[in-house]
Amino acid sequence: MNIQEIILKKRNGGEMTTDEIYFLVNGISNGSIPDYQIAAWAMAVYFRGMTEQETAQLTLAMAYSGEVMDLSAIAGKKVDKHSTGGVGDKATLVVIPLAAAMGVPVAKMSGRGLGHTGGTIDKLESIPGFQAERTYQQFIEQVNSIKAAVISQTGNLVPADKRLYAIRDVTATVDSIPLIASSVMSKKIAAGAEGIVLDVKVGSGAFMKNVGEARQLANTMVQIGRSIGRQVVAVLTDMSQPLGHAVGNALEVREAIDSLRGHGPADLEELSVLLTAQLLLLAGKYNSIEEARQEVRKVLISGAGYEKFCQMITAQGGRLAYDQSNYGLPQSNYQVELKASREGFVAALDAFEVGKTAMLLGAGREKIGDTIDPAVGIQVIKKKGEWVQQGDTLAIIHANNIGLIASAAERLQICYQLSDTTSPQAPLIIDTVY
Amino acid sequence: MNIQEIILKKRNGGEMTTDEIYFLVNGISNGSIPDYQIAAWAMAVYFRGMTEQETAQLTLAMAYSGEVMDLSAIAGKKVDKHSTGGVGDKATLVVIPLAAAMGVPVAKMSGRGLGHTGGTIDKLESIPGFQAERTYQQFIEQVNSIKAAVISQTGNLVPADKRLYAIRDVTATVDSIPLIASSVMSKKIAAGAEGIVLDVKVGSGAFMKNVGEARQLANTMVQIGRSIGRQVVAVLTDMSQPLGHAVGNALEVREAIDSLRGHGPADLEELSVLLTAQLLLLAGKYNSIEEARQEVRKVLISGAGYEKFCQMITAQGGRLAYDQSNYGLPQSNYQVELKASREGFVAALDAFEVGKTAMLLGAGREKIGDTIDPAVGIQVIKKKGEWVQQGDTLAIIHANNIGLIASAAERLQICYQLSDTTSPQAPLIIDTVY
Repeated sequence: MNIQEIILKKRNGGEMTTDEIYFLVNGISNGSIPDYQIAAWAMAVYFRGMTEQETAQLTLAMAYSGEVMDLSAIAGKKVDKHSTGGVGDKATLVVIPLAAAMGVPVAKMSGRGLGHTGGTIDKLESIPGFQAERTYQQFIEQVNSIKAAVISQTGNLVPADKRLYAIRDVTATVDSIPLIASSVMSKKIAAGAEGIVLDVKVGSGAFMKNVGEARQLANTMVQIGRSIGRQVVAVLTDMSQPLGHAVGNALEVREAIDSLRGHGPADLEELSVLLTAQLLLLAGKYNSIEEARQEVRKVLISGAGYEKFCQMITAQGGRLAYDQSNYGLPQSNYQVELKASREGFVAALDAFEVGKTAMLLGAGREKIGDTIDPAVGIQVIKKKGEWVQQGDTLAIIHANNIGLIASAAERLQICYQLSDTTSPQAPLIIDTVY
Repeated sequence: MNIQEIILKKRNGGEMTTDEIYFLVNGISNGSIPDYQIAAWAMAVYFRGMTEQETAQLTLAMAYSGEVMDLSAIAGKKVDKHSTGGVGDKATLVVIPLAAAMGVPVAKMSGRGLGHTGGTIDKLESIPGFQAERTYQQFIEQVNSIKAAVISQTGNLVPADKRLYAIRDVTATVDSIPLIASSVMSKKIAAGAEGIVLDVKVGSGAFMKNVGEARQLANTMVQIGRSIGRQVVAVLTDMSQPLGHAVGNALEVREAIDSLRGHGPADLEELSVLLTAQLLLLAGKYNSIEEARQEVRKVLISGAGYEKFCQMITAQGGRLAYDQSNYGLPQSNYQVELKASREGFVAALDAFEVGKTAMLLGAGREKIGDTIDPAVGIQVIKKKGEWVQQGDTLAIIHANNIGLIASAAERLQICYQLSDTTSPQAPLIIDTVY
């Protein structure tokens, strides 16, 4: 077998055989195929796509290109939740404790953020003392004792995807649906998931900018699951504006805790309840999504999710001050309120720009290796569809570097578009793909 | 400026600016752009193509990416002839002496062969003593004294194309018309050509398999010439069967000499006369192609072209025995005649397969660095449209390795298709593009 012939076949619109896919993925993992041939292949895939069969086989080949987590020491069906990434998306912090509180073990490996979207590990690390690095043994023991653990990726998982992604990242070949889908799914499979709930974000703050693309991605991932015998459900959700009010690591943890205590933002609560209910369905706890949602809401109100969250944080070394309004999380030195210069309805609140502004304040990484400031970020007080009076606070900038405030304020003023008339809002939950 | 943005722009079908093209070409030459980004860009160009403006600017940027030959010490307009490569294509050996004999100086740099097609330098090096490596000074002096020199490429010409081609060669991005056109044209321009006659081959033995593609390539190269102020004419010629009878280095030199002495194959003579006439037109010696062809024919018959060839070979150290029928060229140890197993018209004589068979006998290189045996090759005695009796000699295999003869004979038997009926033959000269 020959990589040049595989590139040529794909370039000409042919379908790679399973043998060819494994040859390619092995060559990516062991370095025998050079970067330039991987890049050319990825660009050919960008233009030609991949069939269902190719995408499923690529996913499996990548999933098994390195270590695969053995979660057999944990009883019950292993389910996982994954978001394709958004601004202010702290739903994982709410969903995991709720599911665990309802008896579904969640052994989750999560990532760090890059660009305008945050990562769950970065958010958790804003909690003083929190340890994301755990040994395999510690991880399994924690899940068996308290049903929930969120750790940063351990071991040599999906080395093929790591190398492929690094090449795609610098060759304008990231936005290919089969490559995105196989990248996401291979990581979930290597992490040991048997059932997966995907939150596919749609809108300016998401990777998928429109519903058509997002639906294609969701369909592709659900189809991969079907092809390789894993249960997958994908929920399409709005990311045209940030989720909730908080964007920035400590701010988001605080909002997640508020939500677990029953006084979080409506959109975060609605999404978290739905995603938890889907996890429960996959785990076989309920048969009807409506029943599952009702039960999740009861548990949320009962405070059991909040207790589970506290257990998990404590188990991983985190120290929260539950009696303080900010739970002892780091706070920024400067909090600057952005006021409305006119009255009107909030017609747009561009999620991408809010995320980018938070990143520039230090809440995110422009490039791998950048340091994150856990305290900084943005609270978007007013959201789409809301009426504001002149002088109302639109948003609060949380900064530690005074020199960054002026440009952040300027960017946010542009994010907020006020209009004299109100227009129908896109629903938070757009669709569910089984 | 940023290479990722340039790849993205091209991937999305945008037009690169001249600045972007120079940024890219400089990065290719000086190594600041890595192979994988060049490969991704080339694959995007494969799918999206390039505009006339982009192709012309890429050509210029590559032509000036290294040294450019200064031919100002040679009086008159500098013209050059280039073939896109075929099987048995020794026309350069006939055209250069004819043009020189008619007062047009030809300072030609030529290449070596790869795959199923031969290179002019390899053919000339089958002449005992012939030196293809000459200094710049020797080159210029030879052209000024005898009007003709054919040397192998000297100096650091078109380094950008060298690197780009090496990457394209292993990433299934060779067959992109704007990339082929700019590669050919940049080399001709760097070699100092003001006027260029292109022989664009069409058919199984050529790079362009059908007339549509060949016409596109010809149009693109002529258009590049127009955009950058060089006169270019392209002739589309048949390469469905080998040109002439001889395929293999010494065999081809012998056939070229025969042709210059007035007893070469009709197709080689017809093509050589036409290409020489086009060179004369570009050099401003004649205004009508018919007049030019008549004059070339007269010179051919006069033997002046043959004399010029002998002068050039002698000037470059070559020693031919003009009184011997094979001119003292190397001969193979084995000559095996392939007989027709039935009677019929030759319906097909696949040029690619003949070229590949000759290569396997040692007449060509499978990969760069392979050694060539100048004596071996194939004489295709019968050509398309000819009637053969059972037992007639179809071809003669010239081999030095007896172990290769059986498989060569087998391959050739398949190349020759005999039919009971004759069908109209494609013309040798398909079209001329100005």
